[in-house]
Amino acid sequence: MIQEVISSIKSLDSVAMDKCQVRLDNLTKPLGCLHALEHLARQLAGITRNPRPRDLKKSILVLAADHGVAAENISVYPQEVTVKMIHQIAGGGAAINTFAEHVAADLLLIDMGIATDLPSLLALRNEKIAFGTSNINQGPAMSRDQAIKAIEAGIKIAAEEIKKGVTAIGLGEVGIANTTSGTAIVATYSQIPVSTLTGRGIGITDTMFNKKIKVIENAITMNCPNPSDPIDVLSKLGGFEIAGLVGVILGGAAGGAALILDGLVTSAAALIAVKLAPQVKDYLVGSHISPEPAHKVALDLINLPAHLHLNMSLGEGTGAALGMSVLKASLHVLNDMKTFGDAEVAVAQDGPGALKQDKNIKE
Amino acid sequence: MIQEVISSIKSLDSVAMDKCQVRLDNLTKPLGCLHALEHLARQLAGITRNPRPRDLKKSILVLAADHGVAAENISVYPQEVTVKMIHQIAGGGAAINTFAEHVAADLLLIDMGIATDLPSLLALRNEKIAFGTSNINQGPAMSRDQAIKAIEAGIKIAAEEIKKGVTAIGLGEVGIANTTSGTAIVATYSQIPVSTLTGRGIGITDTMFNKKIKVIENAITMNCPNPSDPIDVLSKLGGFEIAGLVGVILGGAAGGAALILDGLVTSAAALIAVKLAPQVKDYLVGSHISPEPAHKVALDLINLPAHLHLNMSLGEGTGAALGMSVLKASLHVLNDMKTFGDAEVAVAQDGPGALKQDKNIKE
Repeated sequence: MIQEVISSIKSLDSVAMDKCQVRLDNLTKPLGCLHALEHLARQLAGITRNPRPRDLKKSILVLAADHGVAAENISVYPQEVTVKMIHQIAGGGAAINTFAEHVAADLLLIDMGIATDLPSLLALRNEKIAFGTSNINQGPAMSRDQAIKAIEAGIKIAAEEIKKGVTAIGLGEVGIANTTSGTAIVATYSQIPVSTLTGRGIGITDTMFNKKIKVIENAITMNCPNPSDPIDVLSKLGGFEIAGLVGVILGGAAGGAALILDGLVTSAAALIAVKLAPQVKDYLVGSHISPEPAHKVALDLINLPAHLHLNMSLGEGTGAALGMSVLKASLHVLNDMKTFGDAEVAVAQDGPGALKQDKNIKE
Repeated sequence: MIQEVISSIKSLDSVAMDKCQVRLDNLTKPLGCLHALEHLARQLAGITRNPRPRDLKKSILVLAADHGVAAENISVYPQEVTVKMIHQIAGGGAAINTFAEHVAADLLLIDMGIATDLPSLLALRNEKIAFGTSNINQGPAMSRDQAIKAIEAGIKIAAEEIKKGVTAIGLGEVGIANTTSGTAIVATYSQIPVSTLTGRGIGITDTMFNKKIKVIENAITMNCPNPSDPIDVLSKLGGFEIAGLVGVILGGAAGGAALILDGLVTSAAALIAVKLAPQVKDYLVGSHISPEPAHKVALDLINLPAHLHLNMSLGEGTGAALGMSVLKASLHVLNDMKTFGDAEVAVAQDGPGALKQDKNIKE
């Protein structure tokens, strides 16, 4: 199934992008001066196969799972906090609820492998692979079969969103200790020492920080992930939510949706997805940059800029939601600005020729 | 009048900020993890003297003027383009029109010194000091009296906005060759060589670029601006729109509005304003960072972060408008997220105690 989905990912529509570029170049402003917003508009044209996409139907998917490595005391919060965060999001009072509303995005919450049985009344979709991963400090996080099952679940979820007409998927995650997994994945694909890549998550102590570095180093040495086999890396160092996100990315790209990254964990998932299917890169959109050093490295490895520098470190998809707001601005540029042609028409209708030479501006 | 306004600028309301901080620290998320958004919310509480500001009444002021130095052929566009840009904005089809609408801000266009008489039918407020500045490559841009008159006009404009209930003023500008003026001001206040500070505006050639550096160096050497007399620096190297912006900043701060910067030119104006009245700094909010090297230096001199990295170089207030969108997100955090107290109430009402231990998250 995974190979089938990968082979169905199309190149971006270059005809739509070229037509979009013609409009961008004709807007009443100096050529290219809105830089990133113009790049985004052009990318959205290619993704949606429409030279002038007007709006995006947005959805933010928050995948949650627990990590066996949390037992190593490398996170400020105990594993139970994953469940508390889920309750907060399901109750509508978490940051991502507010942010999703701010950008008019639907919000979906998915249990990929929380270590607890959750009451079925919660607004939580059950795709649980297992009750948390195994401790990567002692062995592989999950079996290869589990990794594949989680990716397939992500693909299925993305396909359902696509079916609803969604054209922009924001990636979010919840999972205590998952920056440890994310950093381990990024370390496997970069030549940068773990001690340089590791961040302090949400304010861990020096002791926890040093322990976190040792755990990541040991997890890599002991599990021997094979970088040329991304599913091997994912199953040995990843998490169920990370594997699910890989599936969402592959399925989203296959279905023609823009995929907006959040922080380190979603970017580690994107790195695995790009290693599995390099053409996925064209569907990815960066959003914010967090204080986790491995986040920047992951984005650099994918070659994706981050537009928002807010030092946020919450996760949940909060950065992805704000990134959607930048995408919205890019579509305002594409659709709502006048072109030199429009300006000339306006002059012809309104009288005096003050705008007549506007064409010069772009020449 | 200027001294009177400066002396009426209050310190931020620390009581409102402390109360705001209590709420921020009680939101259902780890302490401080939304970093810049929390700082902005706290700053807005201090500026509006309200512990929980709900919304901002927003206005974007676009001040326009011509620069005698445009005669030196250091800009891609001839001086006449200032007028064309004014027509585009007045006609509603420019980037800033779209962006202002995107953030629900009013848009005001002000002629501080365009070198042309403009038809009075245009939606353009006339505060013209003169028909463009003198060429700073040959002498001072304007007289000290003109600088003061332009600052006073800006103060008056800001006061009118404040009277309308505006609490957030976005700063914008239009003026061919005004990055030359802006860079000269920043160079005067930094120890950085002009050749390092100078940017390429909107894509000038190597010849123009080298000329631009020489012109700025010469303008500084010849005019001998006195850094300890900011109005001297402004009148010798500035522009009428820059002087007007200094007035808007002083008047806006005196009236208790947040002042959202745009690119290099507005940041150079902010630098002058901060040199005149250091307490103004607390009212300033950064937005984007442009490719002009002097922009980053100006923000560093004021010690103000830029949240948006989009490589935009249009001006008009486009970056300020996007910065307002970040402010809006910060107010969503402050107002729409639940606190641990709310969460406990919800649990008490809804039954099972899953959220009961939420207070631990912030401990």
